[in-house]
Amino acid sequence: MSFEFRLLKTDSNSKARLGELYTPHGKIETPIFMPVGTQATVKTMTPEELKEVGAQIILSNTYHLYLRPGHELIKKAGGLHSFMNWDRPILTDSGGFQVFSLSDLREITEEGVTFRSHIDGSYHFISPEKAIEIQMALGADIIMAFDECPPYPADYDYVKESLKRTTRWLKRCKEAHTRKDQALFGIIQGGMYKDLREESVKETTEVDLPGYAIGGLSVGEPKDIMYDILEYTTSLLPVDKPRYLMGVGTPEDLIEGVLRGVDMFDCVLPTRIARNGSVFTKFGQMTVRNAKYEADFTPLDPYCDCYTCRNYTRAYIRHLIKRNEILGLRLTTYHNLYFLLKLMERIREAIREDKFLEYREEFYRQYKGKI
Amino acid sequence: MSFEFRLLKTDSNSKARLGELYTPHGKIETPIFMPVGTQATVKTMTPEELKEVGAQIILSNTYHLYLRPGHELIKKAGGLHSFMNWDRPILTDSGGFQVFSLSDLREITEEGVTFRSHIDGSYHFISPEKAIEIQMALGADIIMAFDECPPYPADYDYVKESLKRTTRWLKRCKEAHTRKDQALFGIIQGGMYKDLREESVKETTEVDLPGYAIGGLSVGEPKDIMYDILEYTTSLLPVDKPRYLMGVGTPEDLIEGVLRGVDMFDCVLPTRIARNGSVFTKFGQMTVRNAKYEADFTPLDPYCDCYTCRNYTRAYIRHLIKRNEILGLRLTTYHNLYFLLKLMERIREAIREDKFLEYREEFYRQYKGKI
Repeated sequence: MSFEFRLLKTDSNSKARLGELYTPHGKIETPIFMPVGTQATVKTMTPEELKEVGAQIILSNTYHLYLRPGHELIKKAGGLHSFMNWDRPILTDSGGFQVFSLSDLREITEEGVTFRSHIDGSYHFISPEKAIEIQMALGADIIMAFDECPPYPADYDYVKESLKRTTRWLKRCKEAHTRKDQALFGIIQGGMYKDLREESVKETTEVDLPGYAIGGLSVGEPKDIMYDILEYTTSLLPVDKPRYLMGVGTPEDLIEGVLRGVDMFDCVLPTRIARNGSVFTKFGQMTVRNAKYEADFTPLDPYCDCYTCRNYTRAYIRHLIKRNEILGLRLTTYHNLYFLLKLMERIREAIREDKFLEYREEFYRQYKGKI
Repeated sequence: MSFEFRLLKTDSNSKARLGELYTPHGKIETPIFMPVGTQATVKTMTPEELKEVGAQIILSNTYHLYLRPGHELIKKAGGLHSFMNWDRPILTDSGGFQVFSLSDLREITEEGVTFRSHIDGSYHFISPEKAIEIQMALGADIIMAFDECPPYPADYDYVKESLKRTTRWLKRCKEAHTRKDQALFGIIQGGMYKDLREESVKETTEVDLPGYAIGGLSVGEPKDIMYDILEYTTSLLPVDKPRYLMGVGTPEDLIEGVLRGVDMFDCVLPTRIARNGSVFTKFGQMTVRNAKYEADFTPLDPYCDCYTCRNYTRAYIRHLIKRNEILGLRLTTYHNLYFLLKLMERIREAIREDKFLEYREEFYRQYKGKI
């Protein structure tokens, strides 16, 4: 089989895991962060630059690609890898999250979801079968089941009904999925209710799949609830399958996710805040747009050795960003992705040496959130 | 002296010239096209990419840098080269052209020009001395005298009066210019009047300068008039000094300019049309945004070997540009600059082999303007 997960070790002092994920487009070391390329491009970056910053796998969005340019066109191009000139692994989400968060006038039935495009208002219908059809056309290495991600807060009965339907949809997804060179992941839902999370884990893992994702977190709930539900959920998941925490990507959340046994993460955060002129540094997240950096001729992060930090000053990058110059967005995006992927590399190293808790402590001693 | 022009040869069958221009930041081979980096960045490009496409020198804009971030800040950064991380030659214009074309409410007196910023309406005054002060702070290798560029059409008396003032301003520029590591170029004006061009050449070249620019062309006049005035003007200029035709940059105009003895060109055209989804190809300028390229899986220019054409299809680039994805603008910009700089390289090769006229004929056999 072209897809395999090897759990290399678990940290002696925590639930942090070190692993390897084999796909048709190569191996991924876990825990891993996956940069997001919503529209078949990680915003501002070339594939070569993604490799330079250490990206081993990227994520792209079924919802967006289905609407434009269309999955049929991408299939004609030879699939998403060929279309966008990226030869490493790709994961596509199912479109579920975007249908529920971006589109208008959705109607949910057992059959699927009717929604209006956020772009032109046109009507569309996506069922589990359709979501799989689109993802088979795109040809990613890892594809996701079509699920409903309830908002926060949502009441118990709604979340329960929703997760039951998500499980029924998962079975239809598995049925519809016929490509042998793609791994289908199921998604655990259940909101902030532990018994529903347990129910969702039980039903989802009854379907034998190569990996499981945790959805419905980081949707507006307080951090302590998120970490609590996450910890509870991972404790129920099979140890021999990769766990993917969807839509999570602050440096702190990556560390807290790994601590609780997560193997994979994705988030638009590093690329999105970069385009607003915000960057990660050893000491926290700073906004280089701010006037105080106008004549600051030091690098974004003096402790970083990325291309941006080796060659450009805060003053220059601030100038570029204030002028809406594309190079500014490129330099901050490059740095933020490098920062997160370097963080993951150091996390893997720490787990390998049974020092993850020390690494985490050291990280927080310096990193102070927004600065 | 750190600045020197060597005329290596003139084509046996035309006025096309091959030369070398030595500057404090290295040698430039002429004829050359200079990409424009208005705000201390050639839009979308890193310095490394500029080198990859073959840029030997770039141009930046005094008017824009004076307004934002300010020449004093750039001076503090160690000058423009250091600020923007570009170690090859830079030419700065004097700001004259932008003051007259972009700003509001200008008042021209013998002393200088009062204008309102096109950004925030603030009042500013630029004199020849001020233009030189700013350019000395920026620290480019080649700097330009402060001139007035009359619009087209403009009446004889106005153009005559204007060029006389431009000459007086040139003398003040030379007086004010004290940096020995910069070459000050004078600018020939005179509109579409041959006797005024002659007068301008005579007066301007009486001031001993390391190079002369031809301004006031490509301002809306018909092509045949432009070529006629250009040919007349270059015929009057000293052979041992570089001639720089300002603001000209279509492939055809570069060839016609070289034919008439021009050594240097600059233009925002290749980078600007790139951002509108238009690209140069062997057969003409095409708009990859167009619907007909939606499922076209060939390169922008099948005869081009640049990074863009080696790795991406028209279909993908069209998708990116239609979605306003930055990578699309990067790929078209990269290609267009590569195309023009490769054209110049081939032109130099043709002159070296006394085959410029053949090369020009071959070029036009294939290149059909907008396609």
